[in-house]
Amino acid sequence: MQIARISYEGPDGPEPRVVVASDVEPNRWVDVRAAEGLRRARAGATPAAARRLAAVVVPGSLTEALDTGEAFMDAALAALQTEDEACVVPPMARFLAPVDPPAYRDFMAFEAHFRPFYERQGREPPDVMYELPISYMGSVQALLGPEDEVAWPAYSNAIDFELELGIVLGRPGRNLTPEEAHDHILGFTVFNDFSARDMLRRELAGQMGPCKGKNFASAVGPRIVTTDAIDPMNLEMTARANGETWSKGSTSSLLWSVDELVAWASTGENLAAGTLLGTGTVGGGSAGGHGYLSPGDAIELEIEHIGVLRNRIGRDPRSDWLPQPRHRAAKAGK
Amino acid sequence: MQIARISYEGPDGPEPRVVVASDVEPNRWVDVRAAEGLRRARAGATPAAARRLAAVVVPGSLTEALDTGEAFMDAALAALQTEDEACVVPPMARFLAPVDPPAYRDFMAFEAHFRPFYERQGREPPDVMYELPISYMGSVQALLGPEDEVAWPAYSNAIDFELELGIVLGRPGRNLTPEEAHDHILGFTVFNDFSARDMLRRELAGQMGPCKGKNFASAVGPRIVTTDAIDPMNLEMTARANGETWSKGSTSSLLWSVDELVAWASTGENLAAGTLLGTGTVGGGSAGGHGYLSPGDAIELEIEHIGVLRNRIGRDPRSDWLPQPRHRAAKAGK
Repeated sequence: MQIARISYEGPDGPEPRVVVASDVEPNRWVDVRAAEGLRRARAGATPAAARRLAAVVVPGSLTEALDTGEAFMDAALAALQTEDEACVVPPMARFLAPVDPPAYRDFMAFEAHFRPFYERQGREPPDVMYELPISYMGSVQALLGPEDEVAWPAYSNAIDFELELGIVLGRPGRNLTPEEAHDHILGFTVFNDFSARDMLRRELAGQMGPCKGKNFASAVGPRIVTTDAIDPMNLEMTARANGETWSKGSTSSLLWSVDELVAWASTGENLAAGTLLGTGTVGGGSAGGHGYLSPGDAIELEIEHIGVLRNRIGRDPRSDWLPQPRHRAAKAGK
Repeated sequence: MQIARISYEGPDGPEPRVVVASDVEPNRWVDVRAAEGLRRARAGATPAAARRLAAVVVPGSLTEALDTGEAFMDAALAALQTEDEACVVPPMARFLAPVDPPAYRDFMAFEAHFRPFYERQGREPPDVMYELPISYMGSVQALLGPEDEVAWPAYSNAIDFELELGIVLGRPGRNLTPEEAHDHILGFTVFNDFSARDMLRRELAGQMGPCKGKNFASAVGPRIVTTDAIDPMNLEMTARANGETWSKGSTSSLLWSVDELVAWASTGENLAAGTLLGTGTVGGGSAGGHGYLSPGDAIELEIEHIGVLRNRIGRDPRSDWLPQPRHRAAKAGK
């Protein structure tokens, strides 16, 4: 199954709608709430009650939909079977980020990406990079969808992209084994973890997690392909800037399986349905020798069997204030 | 104004309710939704419509309440004036985390905390610690309330607490100056950023943000005191373990003002209403020379004019799986 969200322009302004397509007709998108309303009416609900039921089971938030458990998944599977053409989304719909995650974390699970990072510092990657899948938490408020423009932050002169596989959880979980984790994954999408390289370098010197180097933008989309329809460990990945191919890679070089990444994320932690996890950047999956991006650049990330996630680099209209440096305490003073 | 959330045991099970108290009677808690229902009824709504209106303006989620903008703040201020004793919460109510934030980040803005961290590595803190307020993103799924038990993760032998001031945003913002940021702060609470020191050390060697060292638990509460009622830059902070005072500090030693911390967080980023920001640990505000915690320990963090946040250390009932180490690529191979 393929899951996405589109923007519908109604009397109250634009609203997100969850849509699904089958793997054999991946571009015939069915509006799940509309199909669910018809299904409930056929099951005896009045038209008004059918709409109310459908609105609760299939809200515009994919996370809130997943939170209903089997209610939403039943509605999505039933929608795939609909023969009512009124539920089919017209062509030229505007696609949104397919998921509005309650949390996202990003791993560094491609050695060919992190090895050069450490080699530029004149050293081998530390042992922990091979002992555990290392990750940081990102900002869900930074998430963009297909075609959204990246607001280049005023504090950076070095904006880069990062080509990653995105993993979306379908169910909440805690302390999962990899086998259990497999059943908690809804599916996979394309993920672009935009980075401000200059700010990232400064922040990482402080050793406690990036914020400003990452939180200005991350993009996800255009669709989620469910686990039954795809082998996540053998997908070609391609990045193009302004139409020119800049990198090619494959998920087959992941140090840990996606099931293991989810299992480790769940160890001692509560993971909610709708959670997004990035694999980390595939080897060569950023600008690298091509230099940094410029406003106006178009970045297309493609993953085999999923699709193309396209974003353009813009400018942040305003950010005036910067912190003023502080003095160190005298060396003796603690 | 004082803002908290309590658990109400209704026919559908426990549900969170937002409650407020005045600064002169800080323990007379008024149920804001109940008071708002009465106010709407006095303004001509039928009893059923008054309940519906109140439920939308004052949901159990403080973040969703804040998302309604002036509607919720008007309801909260009106509730403070209520003379209807039926809206007053009976004593012995169970308090929850006062906020359910859509995101939280934690700064390191107390030099007396981060300086020893670097000195143990045999070096001065890097320049960036004095140039920018450094922060990482935490897990909102890890948030505990007052009296909640910390599930000690199986992967750690070194659980510690961290005494911090918590800042809660009342309005969304982006690219705020410190002056603008001041008006976006709802108020302040006590924050305990529990840490797994051994896992944290391993993760930080990877230089990309802690996850497992932090995401198992953070606690917040017991109440939010609004900005008009408190000077956040001059508050005494105390930590007690099993009734014994382990540390004392003050927010007056913050390197940056809380307004500056919020302004920097908002630079090039979207901050949502309900966002939680930690100041970082006050100097000496963790176990330090007292050694690490043990299951059964009770940690009480107190901040002047806010109150005491108390949590007990428990055990995670299960976490079987650990990742298996991977081999490094041959040094020539990238």
